[in-house]
Amino acid sequence: MTKGEETRGAILDEALALASRVGFTGLTIGQLAEQTGMSKSGLFAHFRSKEQLQLQTLAHARRRFIDTTVRPTLATPRGEKRLRELFERWLAWETETLPGGCIFVTGSIEFDDQPGAMHDALVADQRDWMDTIATVAETGVTEGDFRADVDPRQVAFEIQALILGFHHSTRLLDDDQALDRARNAFEAILEHARAH
Amino acid sequence: MTKGEETRGAILDEALALASRVGFTGLTIGQLAEQTGMSKSGLFAHFRSKEQLQLQTLAHARRRFIDTTVRPTLATPRGEKRLRELFERWLAWETETLPGGCIFVTGSIEFDDQPGAMHDALVADQRDWMDTIATVAETGVTEGDFRADVDPRQVAFEIQALILGFHHSTRLLDDDQALDRARNAFEAILEHARAH
Repeated sequence: MTKGEETRGAILDEALALASRVGFTGLTIGQLAEQTGMSKSGLFAHFRSKEQLQLQTLAHARRRFIDTTVRPTLATPRGEKRLRELFERWLAWETETLPGGCIFVTGSIEFDDQPGAMHDALVADQRDWMDTIATVAETGVTEGDFRADVDPRQVAFEIQALILGFHHSTRLLDDDQALDRARNAFEAILEHARAH
Repeated sequence: MTKGEETRGAILDEALALASRVGFTGLTIGQLAEQTGMSKSGLFAHFRSKEQLQLQTLAHARRRFIDTTVRPTLATPRGEKRLRELFERWLAWETETLPGGCIFVTGSIEFDDQPGAMHDALVADQRDWMDTIATVAETGVTEGDFRADVDPRQVAFEIQALILGFHHSTRLLDDDQALDRARNAFEAILEHARAH
């Protein structure tokens, strides 16, 4: 990594932490300058516009999510075991990685009705991720852990829903049982997929 | 209804439609003036501040949700049938009532990390609603439709998660199978609750 890349990475780490608390809409070059102690003009030179800052922060989140969640999941044995790994790593991403919770959840709500580059980037990221979950769920079928007629996309939908429910219960309602509830529900999904 | 109450109701209908598209953060007295054709000073006389406008719009949403979803649900026979009614009416609220989807979902994400009166009002509303779902799920146990050891709060968590997943899939991803997926997942929850 060059010195420039290192600086850029450190700035994007701060931008990501900030966006997770205040949303992408609240992520401004002014606030980022305050947070990092850098000059606004220096940050403008890096990002040029608020939208570019948002897009690059999202891309940074995507890289971190792939490193911490997707890649290690795909390194585990195929089948139910891999789906468990995916779910646990996703929960860890939700709880440990960012101070304000998952940035993809926040961004999805902010941009679902607002056309533009951020909307399109979020949709592309989410579709890729739903494809990944479905592909992992499908290894449960091909390895014989799940019934042959299990629909991997249905499983992906249900797991995505659980993570959103978990986000809601922890972030808004401060429910200390949310983690247990999410895991119980995940076990029920697996049980349903195994049932003959 | 007095003439004043009627006007107030009509303004709050517009405010609700607007907030469902742009969020509570985007709901300003200026934009509402544009939408309704009323003067900004007239609206200020009604609401006094942006936060008051937000709070009263949320209270209006709560009344509409109770009228269209809670009250008719509680008028149906106790047990699994009532839980089905709740789920279908909640889906209808999600799809038909507001142009930008459920305002409680949007508000929850906007205010989960922002302390204040809106945060507190949203938390109170969501806790009441989770209590209502759990109470309805419990009638499934007392009426003998569900196993005696079914945890109504677990069922409430899972149904809330499904609605969030449905919101995500329809609003952001424009997935035309989202409704079927949500209903399939709901049937799996019922099946699991019935299993002996």
